[in-house]
Amino acid sequence: MEPGDTVFINLHLATMADGYGEQRDGAVRVHDGRIAWVGPRADAPVDGARLVDGGGCWLTPGLIDCHTHIVHAGNRSDEFEARLNGASYEDIARAGGGIMSTVRATRAATEDELLRQSVPRVASLLAEGVTTIEIKSGYGLDLESEARMLRVARRVASELPVSVATTFLGAHALPPEFSGRPDDYIGAVCAMLPQLAAEGLVDAVDAFCERIGFTNAQTERVFDAARQLALPVKLHAEQLSDQRGAELVARYNGLSADHLEHLGAEGVAAMAAAGTVAVLLPGAYYFLRDTTPPPVALLREAGVAMAVATDCNPGTSPLTSILLAMNMACTLWRLTPQEVLAGCTVNAARALGRQVDIGTIEVGKRADFALWDIARPADLSYAMGLNPCRGVVNAGVLRAPVVSWRD
Amino acid sequence: MEPGDTVFINLHLATMADGYGEQRDGAVRVHDGRIAWVGPRADAPVDGARLVDGGGCWLTPGLIDCHTHIVHAGNRSDEFEARLNGASYEDIARAGGGIMSTVRATRAATEDELLRQSVPRVASLLAEGVTTIEIKSGYGLDLESEARMLRVARRVASELPVSVATTFLGAHALPPEFSGRPDDYIGAVCAMLPQLAAEGLVDAVDAFCERIGFTNAQTERVFDAARQLALPVKLHAEQLSDQRGAELVARYNGLSADHLEHLGAEGVAAMAAAGTVAVLLPGAYYFLRDTTPPPVALLREAGVAMAVATDCNPGTSPLTSILLAMNMACTLWRLTPQEVLAGCTVNAARALGRQVDIGTIEVGKRADFALWDIARPADLSYAMGLNPCRGVVNAGVLRAPVVSWRD
Ligand SMILES: [Zn+2]
Ligand SMILES: [Zn+2]
Repeated sequence: MEPGDTVFINLHLATMADGYGEQRDGAVRVHDGRIAWVGPRADAPVDGARLVDGGGCWLTPGLIDCHTHIVHAGNRSDEFEARLNGASYEDIARAGGGIMSTVRATRAATEDELLRQSVPRVASLLAEGVTTIEIKSGYGLDLESEARMLRVARRVASELPVSVATTFLGAHALPPEFSGRPDDYIGAVCAMLPQLAAEGLVDAVDAFCERIGFTNAQTERVFDAARQLALPVKLHAEQLSDQRGAELVARYNGLSADHLEHLGAEGVAAMAAAGTVAVLLPGAYYFLRDTTPPPVALLREAGVAMAVATDCNPGTSPLTSILLAMNMACTLWRLTPQEVLAGCTVNAARALGRQVDIGTIEVGKRADFALWDIARPADLSYAMGLNPCRGVVNAGVLRAPVVSWRD
Repeated sequence: MEPGDTVFINLHLATMADGYGEQRDGAVRVHDGRIAWVGPRADAPVDGARLVDGGGCWLTPGLIDCHTHIVHAGNRSDEFEARLNGASYEDIARAGGGIMSTVRATRAATEDELLRQSVPRVASLLAEGVTTIEIKSGYGLDLESEARMLRVARRVASELPVSVATTFLGAHALPPEFSGRPDDYIGAVCAMLPQLAAEGLVDAVDAFCERIGFTNAQTERVFDAARQLALPVKLHAEQLSDQRGAELVARYNGLSADHLEHLGAEGVAAMAAAGTVAVLLPGAYYFLRDTTPPPVALLREAGVAMAVATDCNPGTSPLTSILLAMNMACTLWRLTPQEVLAGCTVNAARALGRQVDIGTIEVGKRADFALWDIARPADLSYAMGLNPCRGVVNAGVLRAPVVSWRD
């Protein structure tokens, strides 16, 4: 224990190291941005340390949103309104809507403009105790635009108090210039990857494996390109139909398979064997009025780690509240409050391959915490629209939650 | 136009006076807390007035949450968690849970404690541009406790920048001391009403007409007592089954019938004839995983005004986001963005009998506005968890949205 350390006291802990890992009247000592000691207040080594009073709040690991498309230009509220006024998906596509409208807007935006439009969405997450966000590309669909999205993701981390994990999702949709030539586009995606990776822009590689996305064979080509660079993979799988995507990504020892509403028993078994995390995205399920829930009981039984994320995106999940994602997973799919809190901490860290560094309050991990004015951890997923976050700690530094989104 | 007035400029208006009532580059002149002029900026009378720059935002009427049980003690996250861990409703009731746990906590709380616990929930609404809230009693169920709840509701209005409409809901549930004697309890409710009204605590009277609540005959006794005092009535109706409650409240020229998932065609017709507003409460529908939507198409066709509210309560709708209620009404029930914005402004004002005073941006009404950093009004109901409120105007006075909930 060294001088200059900080000890957080007068708080209850949910370390998430084992279940909730509850420690009433606990304490945490932080040295050099990392956790040096955790335990009951009565035993805490406070010598030479600055004391920070938690005001009787609960301290959890900083929340982790492990699946977002939060960097993009424009929104799609016009489509939302048109559809509710009776327009069909065809009407909207004919009017230039759908994902291609976001691709057009994102391609047209400068790096600064893209950052400016993304910051309010990120700030909304940070206000709720989020300390790490995964951000995917996938609205650029050409080298320059994908690179711009990923550079903006890196700038989010340098300009706001948050860590960012970047994911290259070139295989998100087929851009119009490759219409009718998906295999050629996959070739282009595989060619982009080493260039983006060389610029340090890629922490993981993802694809959209679906009837309306890319085939399993095309997905494998992308994953093989990732393997060449020793980059981990994850997959948008089984959202609309069972394509055996979970089995595919498990074969590549993927970090996660995401969505999974139509996942079957073989997929569950493959994920369990490979240690692939199930990233559940209730915002899209809710917004699309889906009626097939992911096989939560099967996943639970098989011991597959479940994460929960916002899937923040303009088309199918314009959601910037991680607490609401937690409530939706409980309410719509009957996950427990403990499961969803694990889903936004320890299991979300695993979905990013960062479980050694973040996700629990344990010695050696980064001192990323959220401080909550709640009576018990279940309050976080029970309330809808209430933000009890009283402070956020990034690498040991306490700050007020970011609430302004303009400055 | 008098000196000392304020003119709000550099903003777009959604007056909600006729549809959205859009006025790009509009202006509003305020005199003595009331709207003195509305129109295009180019024609605005600015002589002698202080100019307030809206920064290119949209200005709407202040939002109105016209159905809440927001004053109460404790929450029910423990039940939420127990149920998700497999406890049955019976288990929970046997353990003293359910509405009676909120009644016990509310009866035990002092006025100050009740206020302290309610303020964070109210502040959450105010941060989203809410300027008027309806607050019901109904967790006291005896004269002293009902009076305390309603006094706290009045204190919310005196201590926070918000107008409050109080509703006496003594006929919410049967308290244990009247077990097996519901008619006697209704007698007690009818006796409480004049005393509460004499203290100026009652703006309207409500009841819970349901198989698990009170009968139509019991509801009529409460309504008759209200009529004696010339107090307007409203009713929790047709949430779980069709009890013909909407027809009942329409016979009393009620302000509103609320919930209405099981409303039939006769109820719709009766409401249309009486001008009774349909207050739709998607938070409870979502939280209870109900599958019977209210008959939105019938209501629309019959010209029944539809309002949307949070129903904020600890048991069935722990919701403190009016924007999320708007999104839920769109997403789950296919109301349009314009309908839900009307539902939280002009029609919510009607549900409170205050349409002369609030709910639209029109000359003569109170200058209660919300200022939004959005591209179009549909953004308000499209996004989930994003709060674009940039300022709130209460009776002509601009303030930053309330975000802190402790001070
Ligand atoms: Zn996604
Ligand atoms: Zn209610």
